Amino acid sequence: MMMDERLRKQLEFLIEIDKMKLILRQTLTADGSRRENDAEHSWHLAMGAMTLYEHCPFEIDVSHTVKMALVHDLVEIYAGDTFAYDEKGHKDKFERELAAADKLFSMLPDEKQKKEFFDLWREFEDEQTNDARFAAAIDHLLPFINNHLTQGHTWKLNNVKRSSVMKRMASIEQVIPGAWGAVNAIVEDAIKNGWMIDDR
Amino acid sequence: MMMDERLRKQLEFLIEIDKMKLILRQTLTADGSRRENDAEHSWHLAMGAMTLYEHCPFEIDVSHTVKMALVHDLVEIYAGDTFAYDEKGHKDKFERELAAADKLFSMLPDEKQKKEFFDLWREFEDEQTNDARFAAAIDHLLPFINNHLTQGHTWKLNNVKRSSVMKRMASIEQVIPGAWGAVNAIVEDAIKNGWMIDDR
Repeated sequence: MMMDERLRKQLEFLIEIDKMKLILRQTLTADGSRRENDAEHSWHLAMGAMTLYEHCPFEIDVSHTVKMALVHDLVEIYAGDTFAYDEKGHKDKFERELAAADKLFSMLPDEKQKKEFFDLWREFEDEQTNDARFAAAIDHLLPFINNHLTQGHTWKLNNVKRSSVMKRMASIEQVIPGAWGAVNAIVEDAIKNGWMIDDR
Repeated sequence: MMMDERLRKQLEFLIEIDKMKLILRQTLTADGSRRENDAEHSWHLAMGAMTLYEHCPFEIDVSHTVKMALVHDLVEIYAGDTFAYDEKGHKDKFERELAAADKLFSMLPDEKQKKEFFDLWREFEDEQTNDARFAAAIDHLLPFINNHLTQGHTWKLNNVKRSSVMKRMASIEQVIPGAWGAVNAIVEDAIKNGWMIDDR
């Protein structure tokens, strides 16, 4: 095929990441009909950043956060999805995902473009910048809402405790303070309905 | 629930657009296992913009193009997906989608945010700006590649002709000129394999 080498590698990368559509997460779609996949979750997270940025009390670069959202789960093509409340899986998560990032982004034609994607992934992972903290908060908030909409599906399935959820959601209080009341109300509702274990 | 009115409306909007995960397109995922949906397609398109912008001969705002990609199919929540080669469906497509855009974006808390999303959708639809032309070209290129990877699935299913495909793909020659040779080679291959009708 007549095509320059750079473009060929980039199209192969785009075909490879089509696999994101096949990586299933624990969370269900809002209608409860099936598990959501990484590609659609990443889209939803990016939309969350575009919609909610005004609620973040610190300065956010929305475009940069959107790009981070789109890239943040790409490593799962090789490393798989690690469930939020899987403590064992989280122990070697970073090492597995670092190797996956290196493998996947090495498909790109040069170091500059590889670094562009790698840095977005790493920034999200490290959760040190304002943008990364905001992206992480939405990454926790949207599945939390979908869990509630689907009668606590993944909380029940994994015997998730109130303390684990509150630990995971804690950053919402600083990052999207306007949603903190709703987070607490949802947890209380989930406890009341028996969808979450009350270990308080 | 304790939450300000703006945030409540925005979260309702984010829950509403979760329906994008349920809108099926004609195109299959690259592995051919199932039809792709609008949410994952929008994600893939945004990734295409982030990956391929260097090949566009005119100036592109990548971040803006990415946002357009994420938003461009939201109207299908109410208007449904219109297949690329469905001439009848395209006749009233714009009117149906305009009404859908108005309905969906009116869920947002004020005119300013509604306009932000509406304008992104409208810019993509009008295809007059550089960014919109680039986004549209990738929106044509990625499903074209997936069709080829899945043995011409949607071309065969809909008796698609070479002339229709060439008309749809024509903008690639100006917008991603480096890919034009590959587009032609893929069409020849599809004809050779009997996946596309040769009406030349």
